[in-house]
Amino acid sequence: MRDLGGLLFLSVRDQFGKTQIVTDTTSALAAEMKQLRLETVVRVSGIVQPRPAEMTNKSMLTGEIEVRAEKIEVLNRAEPLPLGVEDQYDAGEELRLKYRYLDLRRPRPLRNMILRHKALQSIRSFNADKGLLEIETPVLIKSTPEGARDYVVPSRIHQGSFYALPQSPQIYKQSLMIGGIDRYFQIARCFRDEDMRSDRQPEFSQIDIEMTFVQEEDIYEHVEEMVKKLIVDLRNMEITTPFTQIDFQDAMNSYGSDAPDLRFNMLLTDVTEIFQNSGFKAFDSVIEAGGSVVGLCGVGKASLSRKQRAELEDLARSEGLAGLLSSPVTDEGLSGILGKIFMSDRQTKLCTKFNAVEGDLLMLAAGEREKIVEPLGRIRKILGDQWDMYDNKKLIFCWVTNAPLFEKTADGSGITAVHHPFTAPVDEDLEKLSSNPLQVRSRAYDLVLNGIELATGSIRNHQRRIQEAVFKAIGMDNVESKKRFGFLLEALSYGAPPHGGIAIGFDRLLMLLAGESSIREVIAFPKSNTANSPMDGSPSPIDGQQLAELGLSLKDTKKKG
Amino acid sequence: MRDLGGLLFLSVRDQFGKTQIVTDTTSALAAEMKQLRLETVVRVSGIVQPRPAEMTNKSMLTGEIEVRAEKIEVLNRAEPLPLGVEDQYDAGEELRLKYRYLDLRRPRPLRNMILRHKALQSIRSFNADKGLLEIETPVLIKSTPEGARDYVVPSRIHQGSFYALPQSPQIYKQSLMIGGIDRYFQIARCFRDEDMRSDRQPEFSQIDIEMTFVQEEDIYEHVEEMVKKLIVDLRNMEITTPFTQIDFQDAMNSYGSDAPDLRFNMLLTDVTEIFQNSGFKAFDSVIEAGGSVVGLCGVGKASLSRKQRAELEDLARSEGLAGLLSSPVTDEGLSGILGKIFMSDRQTKLCTKFNAVEGDLLMLAAGEREKIVEPLGRIRKILGDQWDMYDNKKLIFCWVTNAPLFEKTADGSGITAVHHPFTAPVDEDLEKLSSNPLQVRSRAYDLVLNGIELATGSIRNHQRRIQEAVFKAIGMDNVESKKRFGFLLEALSYGAPPHGGIAIGFDRLLMLLAGESSIREVIAFPKSNTANSPMDGSPSPIDGQQLAELGLSLKDTKKKG
Repeated sequence: MRDLGGLLFLSVRDQFGKTQIVTDTTSALAAEMKQLRLETVVRVSGIVQPRPAEMTNKSMLTGEIEVRAEKIEVLNRAEPLPLGVEDQYDAGEELRLKYRYLDLRRPRPLRNMILRHKALQSIRSFNADKGLLEIETPVLIKSTPEGARDYVVPSRIHQGSFYALPQSPQIYKQSLMIGGIDRYFQIARCFRDEDMRSDRQPEFSQIDIEMTFVQEEDIYEHVEEMVKKLIVDLRNMEITTPFTQIDFQDAMNSYGSDAPDLRFNMLLTDVTEIFQNSGFKAFDSVIEAGGSVVGLCGVGKASLSRKQRAELEDLARSEGLAGLLSSPVTDEGLSGILGKIFMSDRQTKLCTKFNAVEGDLLMLAAGEREKIVEPLGRIRKILGDQWDMYDNKKLIFCWVTNAPLFEKTADGSGITAVHHPFTAPVDEDLEKLSSNPLQVRSRAYDLVLNGIELATGSIRNHQRRIQEAVFKAIGMDNVESKKRFGFLLEALSYGAPPHGGIAIGFDRLLMLLAGESSIREVIAFPKSNTANSPMDGSPSPIDGQQLAELGLSLKDTKKKG
Repeated sequence: MRDLGGLLFLSVRDQFGKTQIVTDTTSALAAEMKQLRLETVVRVSGIVQPRPAEMTNKSMLTGEIEVRAEKIEVLNRAEPLPLGVEDQYDAGEELRLKYRYLDLRRPRPLRNMILRHKALQSIRSFNADKGLLEIETPVLIKSTPEGARDYVVPSRIHQGSFYALPQSPQIYKQSLMIGGIDRYFQIARCFRDEDMRSDRQPEFSQIDIEMTFVQEEDIYEHVEEMVKKLIVDLRNMEITTPFTQIDFQDAMNSYGSDAPDLRFNMLLTDVTEIFQNSGFKAFDSVIEAGGSVVGLCGVGKASLSRKQRAELEDLARSEGLAGLLSSPVTDEGLSGILGKIFMSDRQTKLCTKFNAVEGDLLMLAAGEREKIVEPLGRIRKILGDQWDMYDNKKLIFCWVTNAPLFEKTADGSGITAVHHPFTAPVDEDLEKLSSNPLQVRSRAYDLVLNGIELATGSIRNHQRRIQEAVFKAIGMDNVESKKRFGFLLEALSYGAPPHGGIAIGFDRLLMLLAGESSIREVIAFPKSNTANSPMDGSPSPIDGQQLAELGLSLKDTKKKG
């Protein structure tokens, strides 16, 4: 409300914007209006009229009109609000979640809900137009061992038995393919009872796609076209397709990550060969022990101060490296220790390898190769941010392909599937399934946007004998695999067509498109970092009778203090 | 496969239909083809050519062509199938659910999945075009007491606490309205842990709609337009709008049901007045005790045999009536007991009341009014079917309005909300909220199709003081209501706009549009009648460690034997 020279202005708001109401300051109506508390719900009747030319606001939908009020009715009163409903107020996460129904009145959350709505329509219409059938898979399913943790749901009718909530509709969408559905999609709610990390939610959504009779390129093309349309629909922005495809090993070698950020260069470069017998003892001993020297070249960063270079060193240590040797390229060659030790031809070789010129900064780490590559990858990303090396409006996607099918288990005692056990091995690696499983490449592909993994998919095993060989490789014998995936194995034996698909993290994709830094900002009613909902108070205790009907009792937890 | 005079024909199938492959019976290829088991997955290369004129099949998409095979590759073998994949095979529910991935290959389940897909797209595009925002509400929520039973989900992080799965997104969609969203829709998965009755599923879908600043008519119009479009999209059929609106009391009086089937007449008719002091002792004593005489008129059913009329009597008893007096209308007036007792003017009055003419059959029941109306309503429906009184291709919708807000609890000790406690009372009944709550009419409306309740909705309480009065009427004091719905009550005090909405049973609507008699037929992976999934074996026991991590233990159930 504003009182300006004889006129009282009242701003009324709905989802679509604000409209200005005007009346004479001295009128009875003005007296009524002055009684209204902020956020009162009103119905105003009056004459719609153009605003005075000097007061029009063309950036507002209703900026060129105002309503000369004749009557005002209060439809609902408002108590003083516990938090502000303009964007400049950030009440903090706890309050925002508790009063999410008020927080949603702020323009930014509202804008994110509208964005999400548009994304849902864009994705569904794209897939439906392409002939994929939208099919809803069940939420109450059997527990499957896909790595992370299942939420379970006790059955009242079958006491002692539990459903699980799906971490993914994986085996149901595969069942659809086996059921003769040509192509399927769903925006599926999934659930994971994880120890909460920042930016995880107990429930999340994925764009789930599966198709029969496809190769990798069919999936790539479909997803690229879908994402391209989505970004036009949401941000009216064109992205480049097809996306770059990077072999998993190349991504690890050049970016130190299986989710490479292609918005900037500064690639990891292996210079072990140049350091052979270099006389630089710290590195020589590493190389003799079978290790590597890998580095980055900071373009134009020779000018960093001694303090800044010390901070680089600290960063390297906090990321798990033993150290980071930084060496500025000057007009007299490398400065620092390398300048002293290296003959000029070796300096030239090193600079050539890095494409380094005067003014650049070489940063080198030595160690067991697989222990230094990922820390260097993280350092690359951190410096990319710090040094402002990319246009943060850019959206650069890539596919990472040919990842290994298996990796060692955390305790080193066996091997496990990198993605999930339904992923097909690359054909030419089939014979290594039993002899050398860790060398088997998979037909999996990850979709990465700006260094963030958005999606993972694969061509699946459609032949029972190969699926059984994969189960065997990860230590599941026939009894165990039958117990866990019995019906899928059996299903593969009744004429399962070749098929493959992908699951795209919808919340994360939206977060990036909305320019937000947390998926909570693009979910209507998110849970907190500890999986609570301060708004409704869930989770909460249930009464003893309900527990008894489920055939359950709480364990004594007092001992835990 | 068919072998016809020197040519071997092989039929190959995918989601879109069948195509005929042809080769010479004596070729090597024919020998290969003869080895193939039914449902083997093949890739055939060859020449596409027109079929001989006498063999074209214009009803098939590919009925005018065939493929002269040059090469055939087996992509996957098939073991002998445990059930047939043509519509004429019905393997029975247990087998069909166990091998749902094979059952889906049959044309009818496939057709239902395609129908469901189309319905999803039709409904979403309609609502999005109308400016409603699609917003996904959480699946892990706080337990709410909405009558039936919640599924609960134990929290691992917060041992002893539970989430509930939503029976409806009711309070979340109301929160969205309070959050300033103008209009919302969602096709929401809901859950109910009921003792299974036929045609219930533990998880089901509803078309969930909520709008601000609306009256009943706004919702009616929106839903009518949506359903009209849906039926055009799915069945290319026009239905009549607006739908008939029937007052709840009229529906009970004339149809003996709150879900009246308008496809045929034969209305319940109260003839108590005509039976005053009739001399027919059985009815006189009922009327003296305050009861009523209510009947139906079976047009042209005077010709029923004595045996058939005895069966009517049996039906009446099995539906809970003390008896059913049936009296044919002949050219000499009523035959049977009424003809003997009633003077001709009383007979005329009775026939006039029923619009009965010669050849019709009057069927009369006497008793306490509220105990005979619903049995008569059920008898009306059963006879409507038996006597083939309607065109079963017709789709007749109606709205039932002004239902009571409250009803007595099952044990008679108190009152409870008929729909849910967020339903607003009719304005002019507000003052009866405390004085005479059972007389308060609600602003609820049910949508009924062919006598089946499809949807229920209402204008909600948007003012805290009225919501509190409703809670109080159903025996929830402030402490209790705050504990259960605390955040909604509080939310109503910060400027909640008037709002209302509806929830439409999506599975049931689809079932009726697909011409199926069970919702299981329109769900991709339904549960059985006992809430089991024979396909994946859920629900199933989980291991002790997982239970322990949830802070739970199983009660000793041995005593139950």
